[in-house]
Amino acid sequence: MLALAASPLGLRTLVVDPVADSCAGQVTDLVTAEWGDAAALAEFAGRVDAVTFDFENVPAATAERLAAQVAVHPNPRALAVAQDRLSEKTLFRESGLNTPEFAAVDSRDDLAAAVERIGLPAILKTRRLGYDGKGQFRLKTPADIDAAWAALGEAGAKHGLILEAFVPFDRELSVLAVRGRDGEFRTWPLTRNWHVDGVLSLSLAPAPGTSDELEQAAVAQARAIAERLDYVGVFALELFVRNGELLGNEMAPRVHNSGHWTIEGAHTSQFENHVRAVLGLPLGDTGVRGASAMLNWIGELPDPAPVLATADGHWHDYGKEARPGRKVGHATICASDAGSLRAKLVEVGAGLGREEQVAPAIDVLG
Amino acid sequence: MLALAASPLGLRTLVVDPVADSCAGQVTDLVTAEWGDAAALAEFAGRVDAVTFDFENVPAATAERLAAQVAVHPNPRALAVAQDRLSEKTLFRESGLNTPEFAAVDSRDDLAAAVERIGLPAILKTRRLGYDGKGQFRLKTPADIDAAWAALGEAGAKHGLILEAFVPFDRELSVLAVRGRDGEFRTWPLTRNWHVDGVLSLSLAPAPGTSDELEQAAVAQARAIAERLDYVGVFALELFVRNGELLGNEMAPRVHNSGHWTIEGAHTSQFENHVRAVLGLPLGDTGVRGASAMLNWIGELPDPAPVLATADGHWHDYGKEARPGRKVGHATICASDAGSLRAKLVEVGAGLGREEQVAPAIDVLG
Ligand SMILES: Nc1ncnc2c1ncn2[C@@H]1O[C@H](COP(=O)(O)OP(=O)(O)O)[C@@H](O)[C@H]1O
Ligand SMILES: Nc1ncnc2c1ncn2[C@@H]1O[C@H](COP(=O)(O)OP(=O)(O)O)[C@@H](O)[C@H]1O
Ligand SMILES: [Mg+2]
Ligand SMILES: [Mg+2]
Repeated sequence: MLALAASPLGLRTLVVDPVADSCAGQVTDLVTAEWGDAAALAEFAGRVDAVTFDFENVPAATAERLAAQVAVHPNPRALAVAQDRLSEKTLFRESGLNTPEFAAVDSRDDLAAAVERIGLPAILKTRRLGYDGKGQFRLKTPADIDAAWAALGEAGAKHGLILEAFVPFDRELSVLAVRGRDGEFRTWPLTRNWHVDGVLSLSLAPAPGTSDELEQAAVAQARAIAERLDYVGVFALELFVRNGELLGNEMAPRVHNSGHWTIEGAHTSQFENHVRAVLGLPLGDTGVRGASAMLNWIGELPDPAPVLATADGHWHDYGKEARPGRKVGHATICASDAGSLRAKLVEVGAGLGREEQVAPAIDVLG
Repeated sequence: MLALAASPLGLRTLVVDPVADSCAGQVTDLVTAEWGDAAALAEFAGRVDAVTFDFENVPAATAERLAAQVAVHPNPRALAVAQDRLSEKTLFRESGLNTPEFAAVDSRDDLAAAVERIGLPAILKTRRLGYDGKGQFRLKTPADIDAAWAALGEAGAKHGLILEAFVPFDRELSVLAVRGRDGEFRTWPLTRNWHVDGVLSLSLAPAPGTSDELEQAAVAQARAIAERLDYVGVFALELFVRNGELLGNEMAPRVHNSGHWTIEGAHTSQFENHVRAVLGLPLGDTGVRGASAMLNWIGELPDPAPVLATADGHWHDYGKEARPGRKVGHATICASDAGSLRAKLVEVGAGLGREEQVAPAIDVLG
């Protein structure tokens, strides 16, 4: 989606990926190389004017090596902070954003002590390389400590773990933001998100029923974090709202699934603005065209017809092989206002036999 | 732009072009072959499920040959009619759309007789292969007959010529339409166009100041023509308006420059709807998001900054080498309404030093 957005700007893109059949190869040129392959990366860097990433698990060392040869945005330090849940949450707190209670866990004893201090329920997560709910274990009773350690102890020995208090949040929101090379900062309207089994299922933007106060507070937090990191490009700040208070969950140092609705729902998509930011071009208008809902397709694609037959319904098939738990596409339904969006979602949900997936949106748009 | 629109639908595209550095190669796979290369075309046809074209000068015989192997939309007969100005205007008249007076011209004597009958001023055009005002000669006095023949007689011997009365039109409009495999027919709102030296310079949509009556008449003509041709896909019908009467100029059997504004200005772009039609998918919503202006970049690209700095301003660089008269890109400026579009065009025109190019739009939006 970044390559598709870059093309009209007159840019040629080159994607490096360890996987030879990376879906970016459908629309741009690919270099297949391991992140540690210094020679291949040096050659890659020699062929491009600027580098970015759409995946936060590129090793920060790889980004640093590239940065010695060519401009890399966001900067490798921002990447390093964001790819470690411990440094990320520490940064949030330093910049005034509260978080769920957390503790670093490097051993089974640490885990028992952390459970003691933080209480239960809690979630044990790998500090690094987790995504889409992977690398997480939910603990409800002290008896779960053994199972949690069995599940994640080994990964923890490599990358470290973090125990977080489970937050009985009222809602999840994300701030989708972009910061330019000159420090200009813009946000799209807040997005409300629903996860199923830790994976994003549904997003709604602008997030209905959000007070200006909450929106301003969330944006101010995103801005403070971006400035601390001297961040350039698009990022998402994932937030929990509990009793009107914002808690920082994590930040994605890249274009984010909760911002896919911007392709059709905003005047400038997150993909185009990321490209603009990385190249030092003027940032585009982050205003919306109405109300949008994004439905994720996990594991396999449903029949596209009900979405294609919906006025202002848009289909995105990533050209990936179906596989359980894999994000293989999404749909965005746009409408002029919340009422009309709700009516379309009722119909699309029924057409797809996905009433459950659209239900939370129908509920809050009602 | 077709390939970019096809990608989110999960489609892979393969482009055949006689030119090896065709700009489609920047975003999709290319086969380099001459239109007459039967073996290469047979191989190409074997690799795809459906064929279309974005260029009406593909020989109809090539389209027919492909159609023996694979689905080709629009059908080769529609292509054949539309690529010959004589059969095209004859079709217009047969389906009830008036045209400028015209006469076939195959010799210098024909030309003299046609001038006698039609009167002056008039335009001599090659029946085939003309585009962007190429293959045309304007006659003002009988003394121009020699110069016209000298300029086009040779091309005429190959492809035939047509003499058309020069129409002192009040405005030029195009109907951008799409027809599905099942006969479903949709149009975007009428577009108003301004040409400079026979090349599209500026489009405005929805065409300001168009009566419902005129719009309905234009749409009915486009529909009648599409049905006669059993047309599938997007096409543009170029019209002159003179004293409230519609005259058919030509039809483009493909996505059209006067429809480029639909990428950002409509709920579904002409490119996506062409792909949907050709593949038999449901047609997308042709409603608009507001008012849009499209500025063509001919010969070379201006500085993109003023467009990128305009809210809802969009840049399209085709990645082509600059060359006099060549369409190398375009910009689309979108706004919620005509007044705000006008204000943006004033600013963008000044920023680009292109006051003259935007002037006609500012005038009619005023
Ligand atoms: N501490 C927590 N309390 C409650 N729910 C949580 C907590 N941490 C994660 N979740 C739920 O799991 C989802 C995915 O967890 P997250 O930490 O964002 O990991 P990932 O990197 O996989 O997105 C969150 O969006 C949220 O719905
Ligand atoms: N008969 C005519 N009377 C007046 N203007 C004409 C006539 N034919 C063409 N033109 C002008 O020249 C432009 C290009 O001519 P057209 O026939 O559409 O050729 P092309 O295939 O190059 O677009 C038209 O859009 C119109 O502005
Ligand atoms: Mg997350
Ligand atoms: Mg024309």
